[in-house]
Amino acid sequence: MPLTSERGISAEELRLAARNHAMPLEALRWPITPIGLHYLLVHYDVPLVDPAAWRLQVGGAVERPLTLTLDELRERPAVELTATMECAGNGRALLEPRPLSQPWLTEAVGTATWGGAALTALLAEATPASAAVDVVFAGLDRGVEGGVEQRYARSLPLAEARGSGAVLAYEMNGAPLPPQHGFPLRLVVPGWYGMTNVKWLAELTVTTERFAGYQQTTAYRVRASEHEEGRAVTRMRPRSLLAPPGLPDFYTRERVVAVGHVTLEGRAWSGRAPIALVEVSDDGGASWAEATLTRDLEDLSAWVRFEFDWEPTRPGTFMLCCRATDETGESQPLEAEWNVGGYENNAVQRVPVLVR
Amino acid sequence: MPLTSERGISAEELRLAARNHAMPLEALRWPITPIGLHYLLVHYDVPLVDPAAWRLQVGGAVERPLTLTLDELRERPAVELTATMECAGNGRALLEPRPLSQPWLTEAVGTATWGGAALTALLAEATPASAAVDVVFAGLDRGVEGGVEQRYARSLPLAEARGSGAVLAYEMNGAPLPPQHGFPLRLVVPGWYGMTNVKWLAELTVTTERFAGYQQTTAYRVRASEHEEGRAVTRMRPRSLLAPPGLPDFYTRERVVAVGHVTLEGRAWSGRAPIALVEVSDDGGASWAEATLTRDLEDLSAWVRFEFDWEPTRPGTFMLCCRATDETGESQPLEAEWNVGGYENNAVQRVPVLVR
Repeated sequence: MPLTSERGISAEELRLAARNHAMPLEALRWPITPIGLHYLLVHYDVPLVDPAAWRLQVGGAVERPLTLTLDELRERPAVELTATMECAGNGRALLEPRPLSQPWLTEAVGTATWGGAALTALLAEATPASAAVDVVFAGLDRGVEGGVEQRYARSLPLAEARGSGAVLAYEMNGAPLPPQHGFPLRLVVPGWYGMTNVKWLAELTVTTERFAGYQQTTAYRVRASEHEEGRAVTRMRPRSLLAPPGLPDFYTRERVVAVGHVTLEGRAWSGRAPIALVEVSDDGGASWAEATLTRDLEDLSAWVRFEFDWEPTRPGTFMLCCRATDETGESQPLEAEWNVGGYENNAVQRVPVLVR
Repeated sequence: MPLTSERGISAEELRLAARNHAMPLEALRWPITPIGLHYLLVHYDVPLVDPAAWRLQVGGAVERPLTLTLDELRERPAVELTATMECAGNGRALLEPRPLSQPWLTEAVGTATWGGAALTALLAEATPASAAVDVVFAGLDRGVEGGVEQRYARSLPLAEARGSGAVLAYEMNGAPLPPQHGFPLRLVVPGWYGMTNVKWLAELTVTTERFAGYQQTTAYRVRASEHEEGRAVTRMRPRSLLAPPGLPDFYTRERVVAVGHVTLEGRAWSGRAPIALVEVSDDGGASWAEATLTRDLEDLSAWVRFEFDWEPTRPGTFMLCCRATDETGESQPLEAEWNVGGYENNAVQRVPVLVR
């Protein structure tokens, strides 16, 4: 992946930013992100899929290969999952030097209720061979990446595919899956970064060797340099975001609030464990105070809400920050740890606010 | 509005590009743009509106001021309008020097079916005074722009408000208006650029003097220099866009197709008159051939589809372009006419394609 130390965003990055979109942070006020506000990354093009011709092929090292229509999937017991999903590249454009790819700032996230069939039940139906190790999920979107022409495909270890509560989703927020979110079917694995949740899903292949596809072994690995193998990107690290308070300036997006009482609110999540603590700072992280947490969505895969009564008693510029800690004890760092692909940057958000 | 001759996109522009989103061009394949793919520009923040507390106030120089709940609006005769909507700043980031604002490339467009009450009927109910000249539409989104704290507001001349077929929309594509598209109510004026279609609409005020608000007299004017009054941005100029063929490269978005037959397709629209002609070029506009037009949406306010059989018989790089002409005879220019705000750039799209 190329890098830049230049300050300006490139034409290629702008092209990606114009297509893909983050969640405007005021949408943190909604527990379930309205459709169209949930972050969206399309690797190649949104394919135009004819649902009548579409089939899900389940094959590879299984006792009973399956070919299923959408109606046949709908006949299976339906499950629902409310999950927060974040792009693994969220925060990439804040790294220095900046890895050149989709230039996310802090807000590539969203929460949806996904309806569909349980992956574990479908795997049980197909019955993986005893030597099976991975399940490979291949979508219908095709393109060229790193010089390699490919269909987008990712794998999960079989145990994770069986045990993670993953859903083969044909509904989003109670409506049919929108084209850009994978119509007619996508994978949703609670707690994992977005690249896991293969859209326009067409094939599940059980393998007896580790999957070594482009998106598994070239992309989505945390590497300090191009030359090392690195480690795989998997579950979301803890993160919290504030809905920026007060009024925005149109061009700079900087916020203005009046002296007095301000109720700050935001959301926090981790794909590794429930959120234990969210702290807020108004001095750029020099001092912290605890926010009040509310679990307004039952599903543990969904973000929690936090609230903080802020009393800016004098005019001036304040740097608001928030910091989440999950039940494993992992906390958001003040400074990002740089890596080649620009993944997993969960450094604390900084929201400059002018009090007047 | 500040300008830049630097090549790189600024941090402020990236912040806007991350929030607001264009329509990925493959979505030109759908006659009605799926929700979440329609372009979106939010001037300030998406407001969180309580529909039970919300009212539409109709006042000013009218005989019968009205205060209406959402249910009362729904009790009025329902109308439907299918309309193509484009941001007035579409193409801004391709101008040189680049006006610094939302950095749209070519794809800030979408087509939706809007359901609601006819504006003309509501105006008849309120009965404007004989001295009335403008109708001012004010939304609930607030922010600072050009140093001025404001609610977003725009006006239409009374004759245009009555005669344009405008809808006060509470539905989009058959579902309640999504928050980002103006829930619970927005104005939709067929044929006009996007800034006209005030979201989160709360007040209609009939005035006896021309409205001189920020979004009417400072923004949305075509000016060759900061010092001139310029002319108002009104109806959409003719434009056509191709759905880029073949496969994209992830990072560059450049397209690859195989030698042989390629069916090119796209959409064309004008807010001034129906589309009369679309031409296609594969040599950057040196030579042109006529495309086949299909009106697959009945409403004359909606775009038309065009198709072109392209036969690239040799490998190499081709520059695809398309050019629409409407029934007034106005055609898309090959080069943009620069203006301070970066409005109405309907220069022909250029799609580099590698044939191999």
